[in-house]
Amino acid sequence: MTITAETLDRSRGLVAPALRLAVERLDPFTRLVVSYHLGWSDEQGVPTVANPGKTLRPALALLAAEAVTGRPDPGLPGAVAVELVHNFSLLHDDLMDRDTERRHRRTVWAVWGDATAVLAGDALLSLAHEVLTDADSPYGQAAGQAVAIATRELIRGQVLDLAFEERNDVGLDECLDMAAGKTGALLGVSAAIGAILAGAPQQVVSCLSRFGAELGMAFQLIDDLLGIWGSPAVTGKPVFSDLIARKKTLPVTWSLDHGGKPGRELAAWLRRESSPTEDELQHAARLIERAGGREWAAQEARRRVGLAEQALHEAGLDDLARNRLGDLAHFVIERQS
Amino acid sequence: MTITAETLDRSRGLVAPALRLAVERLDPFTRLVVSYHLGWSDEQGVPTVANPGKTLRPALALLAAEAVTGRPDPGLPGAVAVELVHNFSLLHDDLMDRDTERRHRRTVWAVWGDATAVLAGDALLSLAHEVLTDADSPYGQAAGQAVAIATRELIRGQVLDLAFEERNDVGLDECLDMAAGKTGALLGVSAAIGAILAGAPQQVVSCLSRFGAELGMAFQLIDDLLGIWGSPAVTGKPVFSDLIARKKTLPVTWSLDHGGKPGRELAAWLRRESSPTEDELQHAARLIERAGGREWAAQEARRRVGLAEQALHEAGLDDLARNRLGDLAHFVIERQS
Repeated sequence: MTITAETLDRSRGLVAPALRLAVERLDPFTRLVVSYHLGWSDEQGVPTVANPGKTLRPALALLAAEAVTGRPDPGLPGAVAVELVHNFSLLHDDLMDRDTERRHRRTVWAVWGDATAVLAGDALLSLAHEVLTDADSPYGQAAGQAVAIATRELIRGQVLDLAFEERNDVGLDECLDMAAGKTGALLGVSAAIGAILAGAPQQVVSCLSRFGAELGMAFQLIDDLLGIWGSPAVTGKPVFSDLIARKKTLPVTWSLDHGGKPGRELAAWLRRESSPTEDELQHAARLIERAGGREWAAQEARRRVGLAEQALHEAGLDDLARNRLGDLAHFVIERQS
Repeated sequence: MTITAETLDRSRGLVAPALRLAVERLDPFTRLVVSYHLGWSDEQGVPTVANPGKTLRPALALLAAEAVTGRPDPGLPGAVAVELVHNFSLLHDDLMDRDTERRHRRTVWAVWGDATAVLAGDALLSLAHEVLTDADSPYGQAAGQAVAIATRELIRGQVLDLAFEERNDVGLDECLDMAAGKTGALLGVSAAIGAILAGAPQQVVSCLSRFGAELGMAFQLIDDLLGIWGSPAVTGKPVFSDLIARKKTLPVTWSLDHGGKPGRELAAWLRRESSPTEDELQHAARLIERAGGREWAAQEARRRVGLAEQALHEAGLDDLARNRLGDLAHFVIERQS
């Protein structure tokens, strides 16, 4: 087991009981739906051992608390809250994007319908705040504020994402701004909230927030690469799903802006109306590669991790904590799913 | 102008600027959608003077703060928060219920589509907590907790409401429980939050919460009556909309449980598959009336207002504050829309 796998495993062990305790507050039906979504049970409520997801966000929250106080515990309500907000956004995004599969299982709206996905997402967003207001910390209110601001950014990112689907002229800068909202903001608060709850100085909190936000950009770049070249068996998403949906992902947008002739061919490909065949999807993926979008995204992900490490350095944490957070950053760009 | 109309008017005057300031934080598109939903602008963003709704919830929050401190101001963040949560639930409920009209205008999902209604609702729920975490009060965290718990109840109520649509055997008790979640909880926290933010003793807070919850039940009973016998020109909802949707409203459920022969006829009517004609809807309304459901609902609403007044009395507030809150309670059962 690598150090990062150990870190994630330990974090899951700490967060899982607190997360279950929070979910138990929900009404029986919403609890079933959420338990299914989180991989704890099947559609009938029979317990399962499913892939719990990366739980990267709670790991960041716990490591930051540990970095500041020597113990992960003060970060626990924050870890639960960011995981709840993350899952609120998955439930609603899957519905809006009409994605039918996540982590190798049918999505909630596909199983129970639209209204259930709306309500289960609502319940998790509210529960995140409930958990923070329960926190036995004088900094619970500040943590709630950080989560609310990040959620506003998350929603802004999703609004842009949907608007971009209707447009053919989305530039790279707009796309980076969208990713900063959609992915950067929640990873930023995940990295900061443990320190907020532990009462760390503002300078430490803002360095950790920057660390998480840059890590989030790297995460999104890798996600976009996996959405095109990842193995469906590993990612749990259908092959080429982002291309089928004609998503303006970062490697695509870079290729359109800077990709020369293959970039222009890609632009023409994206404007076509008909549903693409498997061969045509392969062809589009090759165009992005020839345009340089694949290489750029991989490089940009590494550059963002470098910026994240710099922010981490500026936070002035002790070596052990910094190394663990740094390992997590490298895991993000080396992951295959 | 009646005393209550004056109270509501003054409350709107205090809340409107704070509400606008909160909404200005949202991204431009969501801000437009929310401004339209709140009646501040048309679909293009051109300012309008539209019916702002009853804004009963913020009025309760401000009156309670005034009752405790002599000034409404400490309740202001709470007033904004409960109005935001209320509008979050309207946006999502209209979508789930596929209602196309509210306050004489098209609903948000009908104008911009499902995803926009989901995101605008999400944004308002999150914004409610953002406003409370910004509150310059040592009790902001307690206020956030009360709002989160009420939101959980609100969601439980909507989950039940949707489940009841699929069932033909919903009893009155279940229906009352659903209304307590869907309407009682948010009115309860609306009446309590001003006192929470003002640091009132727990006993006062819990009496006010009970006052609001009972008032909420009365409100729902009147709403159900208006949904059948209200004037569409005044309510802004299509005529007989609740009957068309075969909603298990309180007067309907009471008629099924206690309405004798007309109640059994109503049960048969509700089980039919075809879309009812105008004449058939008139007939169903008459069945509810003959079964006694209309009279029961009106009486039960008055009884609930009595219970609300009793809770108010137990809160031990001064006469002026108590009278204003009591007037508001009477307004709730005398309203026509």
